[in-house]
Amino acid sequence: MSITLGPNQHGKAEVRLVKVDRDGARHTIHDLNVTTQLRGDFAAAFTEGDNVHVHATDTQKNVVYAKAKELGITSPEGFLLDLTAHWAAQPWVTGSVMKAESYAWDRISANDFSFARRGQETRTAAVNRFDERTFVLSGLSDLVVLKSTGSEFHGFPRDRYTTLAETTDRILATSITAWWRWEAHPEDWNAAYDRIRTIMLQTFAEVHSLALQQTIYEMGKAVMEAFEGIAEFKISCPNKHHFLVDLSPFDLENPNEVFFAADRPYGLIEAALQRDGSTEPDAWASVPGFA
Amino acid sequence: MSITLGPNQHGKAEVRLVKVDRDGARHTIHDLNVTTQLRGDFAAAFTEGDNVHVHATDTQKNVVYAKAKELGITSPEGFLLDLTAHWAAQPWVTGSVMKAESYAWDRISANDFSFARRGQETRTAAVNRFDERTFVLSGLSDLVVLKSTGSEFHGFPRDRYTTLAETTDRILATSITAWWRWEAHPEDWNAAYDRIRTIMLQTFAEVHSLALQQTIYEMGKAVMEAFEGIAEFKISCPNKHHFLVDLSPFDLENPNEVFFAADRPYGLIEAALQRDGSTEPDAWASVPGFA
Amino acid sequence: MSITLGPNQHGKAEVRLVKVDRDGARHTIHDLNVTTQLRGDFAAAFTEGDNVHVHATDTQKNVVYAKAKELGITSPEGFLLDLTAHWAAQPWVTGSVMKAESYAWDRISANDFSFARRGQETRTAAVNRFDERTFVLSGLSDLVVLKSTGSEFHGFPRDRYTTLAETTDRILATSITAWWRWEAHPEDWNAAYDRIRTIMLQTFAEVHSLALQQTIYEMGKAVMEAFEGIAEFKISCPNKHHFLVDLSPFDLENPNEVFFAADRPYGLIEAALQRDGSTEPDAWASVPGFA
Amino acid sequence: MSITLGPNQHGKAEVRLVKVDRDGARHTIHDLNVTTQLRGDFAAAFTEGDNVHVHATDTQKNVVYAKAKELGITSPEGFLLDLTAHWAAQPWVTGSVMKAESYAWDRISANDFSFARRGQETRTAAVNRFDERTFVLSGLSDLVVLKSTGSEFHGFPRDRYTTLAETTDRILATSITAWWRWEAHPEDWNAAYDRIRTIMLQTFAEVHSLALQQTIYEMGKAVMEAFEGIAEFKISCPNKHHFLVDLSPFDLENPNEVFFAADRPYGLIEAALQRDGSTEPDAWASVPGFA
Repeated sequence: MSITLGPNQHGKAEVRLVKVDRDGARHTIHDLNVTTQLRGDFAAAFTEGDNVHVHATDTQKNVVYAKAKELGITSPEGFLLDLTAHWAAQPWVTGSVMKAESYAWDRISANDFSFARRGQETRTAAVNRFDERTFVLSGLSDLVVLKSTGSEFHGFPRDRYTTLAETTDRILATSITAWWRWEAHPEDWNAAYDRIRTIMLQTFAEVHSLALQQTIYEMGKAVMEAFEGIAEFKISCPNKHHFLVDLSPFDLENPNEVFFAADRPYGLIEAALQRDGSTEPDAWASVPGFA
Repeated sequence: MSITLGPNQHGKAEVRLVKVDRDGARHTIHDLNVTTQLRGDFAAAFTEGDNVHVHATDTQKNVVYAKAKELGITSPEGFLLDLTAHWAAQPWVTGSVMKAESYAWDRISANDFSFARRGQETRTAAVNRFDERTFVLSGLSDLVVLKSTGSEFHGFPRDRYTTLAETTDRILATSITAWWRWEAHPEDWNAAYDRIRTIMLQTFAEVHSLALQQTIYEMGKAVMEAFEGIAEFKISCPNKHHFLVDLSPFDLENPNEVFFAADRPYGLIEAALQRDGSTEPDAWASVPGFA
Repeated sequence: MSITLGPNQHGKAEVRLVKVDRDGARHTIHDLNVTTQLRGDFAAAFTEGDNVHVHATDTQKNVVYAKAKELGITSPEGFLLDLTAHWAAQPWVTGSVMKAESYAWDRISANDFSFARRGQETRTAAVNRFDERTFVLSGLSDLVVLKSTGSEFHGFPRDRYTTLAETTDRILATSITAWWRWEAHPEDWNAAYDRIRTIMLQTFAEVHSLALQQTIYEMGKAVMEAFEGIAEFKISCPNKHHFLVDLSPFDLENPNEVFFAADRPYGLIEAALQRDGSTEPDAWASVPGFA
Repeated sequence: MSITLGPNQHGKAEVRLVKVDRDGARHTIHDLNVTTQLRGDFAAAFTEGDNVHVHATDTQKNVVYAKAKELGITSPEGFLLDLTAHWAAQPWVTGSVMKAESYAWDRISANDFSFARRGQETRTAAVNRFDERTFVLSGLSDLVVLKSTGSEFHGFPRDRYTTLAETTDRILATSITAWWRWEAHPEDWNAAYDRIRTIMLQTFAEVHSLALQQTIYEMGKAVMEAFEGIAEFKISCPNKHHFLVDLSPFDLENPNEVFFAADRPYGLIEAALQRDGSTEPDAWASVPGFA
């Protein structure tokens, strides 16, 4: 039979874990959505229905909860590295991908144990292990930004199918999804995240944009210049079109004031930035949605 | 024929409107999702397919965009009142419901025209007109809050079907949807909204909760005590269960630290508060999801 | 204190219940999403945090599962009537609303216990009890239909804000949400549902449409004419706009062939039909989204 | 500067295209959601904001609509190949990925131009071009299947973190996402799709399952055995857990009749099958969610 089993993985997806650190009366919340996936000597389950090597996904879920208690959580990346180490020591496991989404909560000022979910972007992390190599990715998704001026789009080629007008003043809006690969780990994952997020926002605001392409490239470049440990940066940005409404039928001018925010279709711009032209394709396995 | 047409309405739903106020270099964004619905002498469209009285939904959409330019937007409630007044002056219209969702944006400090979407709760508003009576409702949805202690649940009756254990310390979490009806309008819709939101958060935090019922009642009461103009307050809150994970099979204690955040099912608690025992059922027409 | 507690209810929402009937080797699936809500003498939980009368929502969930086993499920309406009867016999309960969504599965021909989810509309049901009065509603949502011709829209009034062109041939598409109230129960809830669904589809297809208003009115009328036991029928339909794409810039004609299917905004048409001009407002409590 | 631009692409995502074929009175609907992405000599837009080579995403959208009219649509794969060919002839373009989701409609029997959306799985297709190499992928997502018996799970290893009981009779349910790569194209893309879908459903039903792993492997193998032109097959399946409800507190037995259908977490099983052990990594670029 020439049909064979290739790469495969199994695990538990979307384990919703809330860990409360109780430092006296002052509580801290870690709110994670964890996905585990194992690779290794698991072919017999597929080809024979023989589970003798299968780490049940239910067991993987139990490990997530137990390790949260045994080891605590200081950052999504740190916790995923702990989970990776646990599985690396188990039989038949040659690799894994551990992923997490993290949701931020703001304190309500009334006391030390009440919170409102921030609701802005989702912080993401992934640790991909293949035998001796372990890759750490950090990222974010759904960070929605808009600038109401400071964005142009013109100079593009025109052919038979081109109808778009050129513009020197438009709304630029996007929902940022980005991932970055660490070759050297930062001292503090959380502080690094906060600073990267700030750099991206500031760069978005400060770049006078001639194309969304330019804006996202500058965001990535600024992040990589600030953190030498980052070897790759990938970013995917929909162009959330805001179309100027034609009010002339109503004898009204519309000097960039009233816009229709469209849902679909949307422009989609994706790019990778690399330090010294290098990439590690394995690091990006199971990270959805990138070129 | 004994089958007759009863109440009906037609309009344009989810008109995505972004209005930029340009006060010199400093921009302000109004980001709204507007729905219009008209009631009146429109039966012939249903029973005969005769559109001679029908204000096309496309026209209603145009009015939303044109009025945003003609009159500007200071608050969701104010804009909906403007739209209501426009339609009240049109032939065949005897009533309307105008609704809006409003999304908040935070300024990025780099300049005066860059923003990140706040992403927390959605602010809501509705204006319901029936002939001479006009009702203004304000509200919010998807305000997610959690307290990691300060919540108990016990003393409930036990019968054949009761298995729930009593607890004196649990996580209490919910996603608040609330609406309030103004009998006297506040001076400043936006300031009132901000203060009400703050009152709800502070009350959620401060009430030592014996039941989610108690918490939501106290939130409503605090809002109505602070604003005499509010005649009714309705609130709907899922109990977003956080179940303590049983770690004893792994020889681990779990002193309220590690929780599973469940999706479904969820408790659902809904209540109305009334000033002087009065309600206006018409005010609540087309406002979804309340008792 | 002039602020008082008004109507309130508490229960368990979205209890996901799958019941397998095993008639020998031939299995039948009932796939329901059940929501329970109780009304009654529950004020003290809100005003005092006193749960002595509170039927815990966890207990309500247990009842759903236990009754599925004790009594079986023949139809969503029948099961909700069973749940209603259970709660009517409990202390402090004066009323309730029991709701269900039901998802259909098609058999895979290979054997008697394998299924593919049909994925079309969701069947809905609700039973509203207030003391001695019990109302049964049946319905459906998300039944998406389209006709590629046989739809016109013209003759509507034109004013300053009207820009829409008249048309004698357009795509008409909508996603039907409908509810109907039974004054006399049908012999077989499932057979009635299937026939009503068929009547709605056939009527949608057969009515040469001059307005979506006309189409939805005719759908309701046809259902009520076929079932004398139905006293009210409510229907809410978005006009899922399909805009003809202007291909003239590319020197192409477009004789109603190539369309852009828009997301938002959409027309929204809602209507009630009544037998003998009567309605029962209480029957519609907690049924979302209707005029 | 050691930071450089790596792979990148730009295009228009989610172009909602409905094409009506009018063969006399009998209409046929093609309902597609098309995404275009171009690769090539576009670096200057990122690094300089110079758009002189940028095929505007608006132009790409126009091409989708114009080609639908110029060339017609016979299948998603055929249409994507047409779009690929168009872009291959344009300056600065060295590659592309064209993707489509396709939604099926059932005819309403009343006439030849009325339809109800089938609502089951989404058919998917992607054409990935890199210079001279063009890869065609077909697939499907959201095909939800369930068998109420004929599924076991036991024999897995037990360690400190294992609590799952073994079972010889459980519900097996999943939502299938699969993609297959064609090395030789079938004569009729639509007939091939229909047959593959049937093979997957029949195999799901017929395999007595000892693990979800086994079931998905057998589904892939059956498809590849039936179609020699398929060189790779990738499948990703959540284990949609249906947990038997413990009714013993209520003195009720539950012989595999009453289940709780859980949302999260869920097992996730992913695998690739390969003919002659070969893969083409480039073919899978921009196809989300696979190992």
